[in-house]
Amino acid sequence: MKNSQVSTAVIRRLPRYYRYLTDLSIAGVLKISSKALADKMGVTASQIRQDLNCFGGFGQQGYGYNVELLRQEIGAILGVDKNYNAVLIGVGNLGHAIANHVKFEKRGIKLVGIFDIDEKLMGQEIKGIKVKHISELDEFCKEYQPKIAVLTLAKAETEKMMKQLCDLGVIGFWNFANMELKAPSDDITVVNVHLGDSLMTLCYDIKDKI
Amino acid sequence: MKNSQVSTAVIRRLPRYYRYLTDLSIAGVLKISSKALADKMGVTASQIRQDLNCFGGFGQQGYGYNVELLRQEIGAILGVDKNYNAVLIGVGNLGHAIANHVKFEKRGIKLVGIFDIDEKLMGQEIKGIKVKHISELDEFCKEYQPKIAVLTLAKAETEKMMKQLCDLGVIGFWNFANMELKAPSDDITVVNVHLGDSLMTLCYDIKDKI
Repeated sequence: MKNSQVSTAVIRRLPRYYRYLTDLSIAGVLKISSKALADKMGVTASQIRQDLNCFGGFGQQGYGYNVELLRQEIGAILGVDKNYNAVLIGVGNLGHAIANHVKFEKRGIKLVGIFDIDEKLMGQEIKGIKVKHISELDEFCKEYQPKIAVLTLAKAETEKMMKQLCDLGVIGFWNFANMELKAPSDDITVVNVHLGDSLMTLCYDIKDKI
Repeated sequence: MKNSQVSTAVIRRLPRYYRYLTDLSIAGVLKISSKALADKMGVTASQIRQDLNCFGGFGQQGYGYNVELLRQEIGAILGVDKNYNAVLIGVGNLGHAIANHVKFEKRGIKLVGIFDIDEKLMGQEIKGIKVKHISELDEFCKEYQPKIAVLTLAKAETEKMMKQLCDLGVIGFWNFANMELKAPSDDITVVNVHLGDSLMTLCYDIKDKI
């Protein structure tokens, strides 16, 4: 399946399908109708049919989707089978929380290194990974060749760190600084996470409920 | 402006517009063309015109948008002028990080209370707010009437906490447990944050770049 065949809007919805299908698969569900999946996900059955029809062959009229096959197909599209190595830079509360809270392995990503500049943190273990000093980053990247970096740094340090990591072969940045980090070229992907954005849509939704 | 006049897809994009317009306003920019705003935001000018035309009157052909007026209008639509009180429940690394990292006040929200069950955390200050024991929650809510609750609890505790808070008048839940918390009625809004979803779209994007 080529990227170009699936629209960006559908791609953005795929992780949510993947989560639901994973839960269904774990629960032992083999087939599910678009109607039942829609009810679970709080969307319409026609939206689901429209989204998932791009992936062909998994839904049969009156029969439903094969949960595990569809899950695998969506996973493959998202690259869950790629087993990227990732590093996390910046062990404040947020870095710590992300390392512990995000299920990297469920998404086919292996968090292999955690780095900080603070000497006091060296040797501390997070999720079984010893925090290393940032001065060891170059050598580490040559050995582990991470493709993804999670950046939980101050704004001022983020761009410089991205440049260093680009030179070390990292091509995907998951940035948590409250800023729009720009990819230096088309070969690099940056996803800027703005936690506050979803808080604003929450505010919007409750406005008429008070 | 009634909710019904603006589509959900546009609403989801508004926080991002609001961020950019706030930065422009702080930088002293008075007017901006859809083309210039589009270049900054990495979208097309026609997308911007389509999105912002719903709000009428702020863009003039060949002249551009009045940055501050547009910012205020979008802010009002999002409810930034509502000054909701909010509480945060659960002071693990994630709760700690969210309290410190998210600019609540910029979004017209006042974080007034932080609660946990762990006696050891009592009295600790986060962003100038003393952590209180969960047993004080009822009384606190009667006094401060928070409308929003940030939940950074374990899955098992999240639903029970939502019910308690609903009874205390909270109508908006920003949930960080890795689960789909469902609103018990249409009067309640739940926004489930799944950090990992944006990581999966990152994986998707880099798949063809390796």
